[in-house]
Amino acid sequence: MAKKIRLGVLGGGGDSLIGVLHRVASHINDNYQIVGAVFNPDFEANMAFAKEIDVPTNRIYTDFDTMVEEELKLPEEERIQVCAILTPNFLHFPMAKKLLENGFHVICEKPMTTTYEEAKILQATWERAGTVFAVTHTYTGYPMVRQMREMIKAGALGKIHKVDACYYQGWINTIIHDKEKRSSVWRLDPKKAGISSCMGDIGVHAFNMIEYTTGLQVKTLLADFNYLYEDNKMDVDGTVLIRMGDHVKGLIRSSQVATGEENGLAINIYGEKAAFRWEQERPNFLYRLSDTEPAQVYKPGHAYNSKLSLEGTKLPPGHPEGIFDAMANIYLGVARAIRGENYNDGEFPTMQDGVRGLNFIEATVESNKQGNVWVSMDA
Amino acid sequence: MAKKIRLGVLGGGGDSLIGVLHRVASHINDNYQIVGAVFNPDFEANMAFAKEIDVPTNRIYTDFDTMVEEELKLPEEERIQVCAILTPNFLHFPMAKKLLENGFHVICEKPMTTTYEEAKILQATWERAGTVFAVTHTYTGYPMVRQMREMIKAGALGKIHKVDACYYQGWINTIIHDKEKRSSVWRLDPKKAGISSCMGDIGVHAFNMIEYTTGLQVKTLLADFNYLYEDNKMDVDGTVLIRMGDHVKGLIRSSQVATGEENGLAINIYGEKAAFRWEQERPNFLYRLSDTEPAQVYKPGHAYNSKLSLEGTKLPPGHPEGIFDAMANIYLGVARAIRGENYNDGEFPTMQDGVRGLNFIEATVESNKQGNVWVSMDA
Amino acid sequence: MAKKIRLGVLGGGGDSLIGVLHRVASHINDNYQIVGAVFNPDFEANMAFAKEIDVPTNRIYTDFDTMVEEELKLPEEERIQVCAILTPNFLHFPMAKKLLENGFHVICEKPMTTTYEEAKILQATWERAGTVFAVTHTYTGYPMVRQMREMIKAGALGKIHKVDACYYQGWINTIIHDKEKRSSVWRLDPKKAGISSCMGDIGVHAFNMIEYTTGLQVKTLLADFNYLYEDNKMDVDGTVLIRMGDHVKGLIRSSQVATGEENGLAINIYGEKAAFRWEQERPNFLYRLSDTEPAQVYKPGHAYNSKLSLEGTKLPPGHPEGIFDAMANIYLGVARAIRGENYNDGEFPTMQDGVRGLNFIEATVESNKQGNVWVSMDA
Amino acid sequence: MAKKIRLGVLGGGGDSLIGVLHRVASHINDNYQIVGAVFNPDFEANMAFAKEIDVPTNRIYTDFDTMVEEELKLPEEERIQVCAILTPNFLHFPMAKKLLENGFHVICEKPMTTTYEEAKILQATWERAGTVFAVTHTYTGYPMVRQMREMIKAGALGKIHKVDACYYQGWINTIIHDKEKRSSVWRLDPKKAGISSCMGDIGVHAFNMIEYTTGLQVKTLLADFNYLYEDNKMDVDGTVLIRMGDHVKGLIRSSQVATGEENGLAINIYGEKAAFRWEQERPNFLYRLSDTEPAQVYKPGHAYNSKLSLEGTKLPPGHPEGIFDAMANIYLGVARAIRGENYNDGEFPTMQDGVRGLNFIEATVESNKQGNVWVSMDA
Repeated sequence: MAKKIRLGVLGGGGDSLIGVLHRVASHINDNYQIVGAVFNPDFEANMAFAKEIDVPTNRIYTDFDTMVEEELKLPEEERIQVCAILTPNFLHFPMAKKLLENGFHVICEKPMTTTYEEAKILQATWERAGTVFAVTHTYTGYPMVRQMREMIKAGALGKIHKVDACYYQGWINTIIHDKEKRSSVWRLDPKKAGISSCMGDIGVHAFNMIEYTTGLQVKTLLADFNYLYEDNKMDVDGTVLIRMGDHVKGLIRSSQVATGEENGLAINIYGEKAAFRWEQERPNFLYRLSDTEPAQVYKPGHAYNSKLSLEGTKLPPGHPEGIFDAMANIYLGVARAIRGENYNDGEFPTMQDGVRGLNFIEATVESNKQGNVWVSMDA
Repeated sequence: MAKKIRLGVLGGGGDSLIGVLHRVASHINDNYQIVGAVFNPDFEANMAFAKEIDVPTNRIYTDFDTMVEEELKLPEEERIQVCAILTPNFLHFPMAKKLLENGFHVICEKPMTTTYEEAKILQATWERAGTVFAVTHTYTGYPMVRQMREMIKAGALGKIHKVDACYYQGWINTIIHDKEKRSSVWRLDPKKAGISSCMGDIGVHAFNMIEYTTGLQVKTLLADFNYLYEDNKMDVDGTVLIRMGDHVKGLIRSSQVATGEENGLAINIYGEKAAFRWEQERPNFLYRLSDTEPAQVYKPGHAYNSKLSLEGTKLPPGHPEGIFDAMANIYLGVARAIRGENYNDGEFPTMQDGVRGLNFIEATVESNKQGNVWVSMDA
Repeated sequence: MAKKIRLGVLGGGGDSLIGVLHRVASHINDNYQIVGAVFNPDFEANMAFAKEIDVPTNRIYTDFDTMVEEELKLPEEERIQVCAILTPNFLHFPMAKKLLENGFHVICEKPMTTTYEEAKILQATWERAGTVFAVTHTYTGYPMVRQMREMIKAGALGKIHKVDACYYQGWINTIIHDKEKRSSVWRLDPKKAGISSCMGDIGVHAFNMIEYTTGLQVKTLLADFNYLYEDNKMDVDGTVLIRMGDHVKGLIRSSQVATGEENGLAINIYGEKAAFRWEQERPNFLYRLSDTEPAQVYKPGHAYNSKLSLEGTKLPPGHPEGIFDAMANIYLGVARAIRGENYNDGEFPTMQDGVRGLNFIEATVESNKQGNVWVSMDA
Repeated sequence: MAKKIRLGVLGGGGDSLIGVLHRVASHINDNYQIVGAVFNPDFEANMAFAKEIDVPTNRIYTDFDTMVEEELKLPEEERIQVCAILTPNFLHFPMAKKLLENGFHVICEKPMTTTYEEAKILQATWERAGTVFAVTHTYTGYPMVRQMREMIKAGALGKIHKVDACYYQGWINTIIHDKEKRSSVWRLDPKKAGISSCMGDIGVHAFNMIEYTTGLQVKTLLADFNYLYEDNKMDVDGTVLIRMGDHVKGLIRSSQVATGEENGLAINIYGEKAAFRWEQERPNFLYRLSDTEPAQVYKPGHAYNSKLSLEGTKLPPGHPEGIFDAMANIYLGVARAIRGENYNDGEFPTMQDGVRGLNFIEATVESNKQGNVWVSMDA
C-alpha cells in the first residue's frame, strides 16, 4: 500500500448517518484520507463540521461546482481522486456525471439516479470516462454474502430454482398512520423523493442481493404495491414476483409498514443440490441447507471460506463485524481498483448494479400501475 | 368427563403416518376409544393391523359401506359416535357425506374433498345433519397459534395491514428432478392427486393459518405457480398475492422444492400496533414485535396466555409439546362438541375452513392458468 | 407386536402432571393398556378418576398391598405385567422392592429411592428378580439425545475433554423469597422431600444426561450449594465440579432460582475432534461444533441419524415431537424388553442409572456440607 | 468537539490484529489522530508500517524511551496526549508507569500488568499522576452490555442472587494436543506468557463483565483448572466458583479447549425480579427473562434504551454494529475524559478494573494450586 487515497466528500455533514457510515468505512482499512469536501450547502455549517471532525479547512468548498473547478487546478498528485456522493437523491446524477466527465472516481450512494433514463446516460458517461465507479449497495460487503456468491459460482447449489428475498422495516408506521404527517413528509412526496418509497429505498436492495449472489438476472416481474391509505401517493409496501429464466422463479418482499421489523433484509436461495439462508441482522451466520445432510452454519474468518469472503474479515472467528465493516469492504475494493491492483469481481457494486436497480424500480412501478401485469426488464 | 367417545377409523393402517398421528392424538386426553375400523381395504391386512395395535377385531369391517350398515344396527350407546377419515383424498367426500347423512360425527383429513363443488355439497349435507364436523388443519392446534388468534381478537395488533405466510418444504426435490420419477409418481398425476400438488397440499395450510389467526377473509388472489419442468403437470411451488380488504394485503408462499426446508410453515402478521411472528418448527415460541418496545417472546403454559391457549397445554412452561399435542387439542375440542359441552370458537377447524380451503385451491389454479390474474374468492 | 402389555399405575391420579405424562406416553406406540391401578390413596377419588379416564373399575384397588395381593391371584396372562410408580418419592423404594420381589416389571419415577442405601438394596433385589426395571430420566428419550450418545460411542468427538451440563429453572422464586412460604412448603422441608431440592430434583437429570451421552462416569465431585436465606434448609441452587477421569473435567450447574428460566436443561460436550450442544427446550436441534468446519445442525427423522435415534421418531423431519414423545420412547424400550425382543442399549434408563443418581445426590450434599471438598463416587 | 486528540501507539504494527482493532476504533468517532508511534521494535519495519498506513514518519521513534524523551521536548499542544499500549504483556507495566509519570494519558491493553503487585504499583502511580487511564476490556463497550449495567443500576433485576458468566474458545486445541507444539509455543510457557493462559486471557474478561454489569464485587473464589496433559504447565480450561456477598453466588466458566467455540463470552444474571442473558457473538440482542411475563428482547438504538447505551450506537435499529464499534465506544469515553467533558461512569474500564483483574487471576491460580480451596480477593 502506498499513500492514502485522496477522498472528497459531498454531503454527509452534521448528524448525517450516511456521513458517519462512509467516513468510518473509509478509515477502517487505512486507505483513505478526506482532503476536500462540501459537507453541507450552507458554507458556515460546512466549515464548522470540517472543524468538528478535524478535516483541514483549506479545501472545504462553498459548493460542488467550485469544488470541481478548484480541484482541477491542483496538480494531479494533490487532487481529490475519488468523490463520495452522499447528497439528496436528485443530486446524485448531475454530480456523478460531472465528476466522471472530469476524470474523478466516484463512490455514489444509492439510488444512483432518480430515473432509469438518467442511469443509462450516466452509464454511457462512465464508459467514456474509464474511471472507477461504485454504488453503495452496502450489504454486498458482508463476508457471508460474498461467501454465498462465491460458493454459488463454484456450483454449491447446482441449478437454482427459486429465490426468495425480503426487506421488511416498520419505521414508516409512525408517519403513515397520521394523515397530517403522511401528506407533509418529503419521503412520501413523489415530487421530492422520486416515484417509489418502499421499492426504491429498500426493495431495490433485495433485488440487488439476488442478482449479486446468484449471478442470474431478473427477466420479467409482476408487482403489487400497498399504499395503505387512499390519500398516500407512495408505495410503503410491495411484493414482486420475478422470473429469472426458464422455470427459475422467485419473489421480492418489501415493506416499510412491517411493524416491529428493523432492518430485515434476508435472502433464501434454493438450488438443486442445496440452499442458502442469510439475514442481515445476524450477518455473521450463513446457513447451507440440504435435503439429506445436516444444515451447516458458515461463519466469517474460517479457512473454509472463499478468498473474497476472507478478505472482508479482519479479526478471528467470533469477533462480530457489522455494517461499518461491510461498507469498509466496499471501500477497500474501490481502493484496489483505483490503485490498479488486482481485485476480485464482486468487491464493490458497479455501474451495472446501479443501472439494473433503476430499471427494477421503474419496472415495478409500471407493473403495479398497469394492474399487476408482467413487465420485462432490459437484458 | 364420562365414558370415552367411541371412535371409528377409516384408513390409517400399517405404516401410515397420518394413522399414527390421529391415533396418538385421540389417546392423549383420555377421551376416545377406537371401537370400529376399516384400517385397510384389504381385509386381511385390516385385521392384522387391528391385532397389532390391539383393537378388538369384532368391529373391524371389510369395507366402509358395511361398517356404516353394521354400526347402524347397533344400539346408539354402543355405536361409533365419530369417524376419522384418513383414506386417500378422493374418498373423503363420499365417506364424509354418507357418515353425515347417517348421523355420525366426522373428523376428516385435509383436503376435505377434491373439488370446491363437492365441498359445497358436503357443507349443505352437514347443515342438514347437525352433527359435529372437523377438518384437521392440525397446526391450528398449537397453543401459540391459538394465542395469536385470541390476542388479535382482543385487539393486540390493532388494524392488520399485512400478512405474510409461508409453507416451504424440499422433499419433492428427490422426485421432481428425475424425469422417470416425476412422470410416474401418483403425487404428481392430476388424475390421482387432484388439481394441485403444492397449493393443495401445503399452500392451503398457510391460507388456513391466515384466516384462523386474523379472523379476516381473503377476498381476491393472484397466483403464480412453478412446475419446474415442461413435462410436469403439477405445481411444486407457488406464490399467491392476496387481498383481505381495503388496503389489507399479503402473500402466501409455498414450495415443495425449497431445498433443505423440512416443514417450514410460518406466519408474520403486521398490524397498526404490533406484529406476530410464529414458526411451526419452533412452535412454542411466539414473537410479538413492536416499533417502540422490546420484542416479546410468548411461551405456552404461562398465566399470561389466553384460556384457549392454556387449555391446549398440559405441562408447565418449558416442557416442549409438539405436533401430536396440537392434533390432540383438536380432538379435545371435537370431544367437547360431541358431548355438548361448552367449547371455544377456534378449538377445531370446521366445515367452513374446509370449504374455504377448496375455494382457495381452485382459485389459485384458475389464476395461474389465466396468466396470473386476480380471481375472487366467494364471500 | 402381539397383545398390549398390561400396565398397572400407582399414583398419578387427578390433575397429576406426571400422571398425564406417563399415561400419554404409554398410549403413543399402541403398546400398553392400563388394567389395574391405585391412582389415589383415597378410594373414592381413585374410582372417580378411573371413571373419568374410562379405565375399567374392576381392578381399581384400595391400596398398593391389596393390588399386589389380588393381582397375584390372577392367572399370569391376565395379571399386571409392569407397574408405573408415580407416587410421592418416599414410596418409590418400598413399592418397587415389593413389585420386584413378586415378579413384576417396574417403571419407576425419579428419584428411584430417597437414599443411596435404599438404591443399593433395590439394585440387589432387582438382580435377584431378573425382571425389567426402568427409571424415567425422561430426557434421554429425545431422539437427538440418543443421536449424541450413538455418535459419541462411534467416536465422533474423539477423546472427550470437557463436559458442561446445566439445568436452570426459576419457579421456586415465588416460594423462596417469601419467608412464610419457604418455611411451610413440603418441597423445602428435608423431612418430607429428602435431603436435596435442587440437586435431587433437577441436578441429577443433568448428571444423568452426562453419563448417558458420554458413556463416561463421574469419579469425584465438589459441590457448592446456595440456600439463599439463612432459614432455608434446602439447596435451591448449586454448582458441581466434576472429574471423569484423567484430565477429563466438567461441571453441572443447576438452579431453581434462575429467574425466567423454565426447564433449561442443556449439555455441551467438548472432544478432541468435535463438540455437541443440545438444549431441552429446542429438543429437535442438535449442534455439532468443529474448530475447522462449519457447525452442523442435526434434526430428527433424517436418514443420517443412528438407528437408536430414528426409532424414537414417528413422523418425517420438521414435525416437532416433544416431551411426551420422549417418554413414549422410554415406554417403547421397556415394552421391547418385557416382550424379550431385541432392544438397544440406551432405550431406557436402568437400575444402574437410578443407583448412580442417588450416589450423586448424596455425594454433592456431603461435599457441600464438608465445605466444598472433593468427594468420590462409587465405581 | 475541538481538534482531534493526538494519539501515540506502542506496538500493533504489521499484521497485528490488536493494532487494527485500536486503529479502527480510534478513527470511528473522528476523535483521534495518530501523531507518533513505535509500531515495531525493529525500526525499519516500524517506518515501513508507518508508510503503509500513511502516518507521518517524522515522529516514528526507534524505541519507547526515545519516544517519551522526544515527545516531552515538544510543546504541549503538539505533544502526544494519550498512548495506546499494544505491546507484549510484560511491557505493559513499565511503559504505562513511565507514561503516567510523565503526564501522558494511557489506553492499555489487557492484562494491564503481569502481576497483581505491579498492578497495585501502577495504581498508586496513576493516583499521583491524575491523568486518564483506561484498560481495554473491549466487551464493556457493547451497547447492550451497557444497557444491562444501567438497568441493573436502576433496579430492573431487584436483588441479584446468581451470576453465571462464560468464556469458551476452542482455538488452543490445535496446539495443545500436539506434544511438540504445546511444549514450544510461548503462549503455554509461564516464563513468557505469565502465570495463566485461560484464566489470564479470557476468564478475566468474564470476571470483568460480571463486576461491570452487576456493580457487585467478587469476595471469595474457588478455582479448578484443567491442564489436559501432564507436561503442560498452563491452564487451558478452568471453572471458578464465586461469592459476591451474602448468599449471592455464581460461577465463571472459561476454556480454550471448548472445541468449536469461537469467542463465546456470555453472561446470565439472575435477580429477584428478572434476569438478563447476553452473548458476545450476538451482541445486539439482550434478553430480559421473567418468571411471569414474556421474555423481552432489547436491541440497540431504540428510545427505550439508557443514555449510556444509546451513546454507543451510531445507526438506527437493525444495523449491526460489532466489536470495532464496541472498542470505539471505549475510545469515545476516553476522549471525553481527556477533554474534561462530562462522561458517564462506565464509559471505559478503569485502573480499578485492571487491578481487580490481576487480583482475580492470581487468586484463581492460588486456589487451584492449593487444591481448589476458597481464596479471598481484596476489597
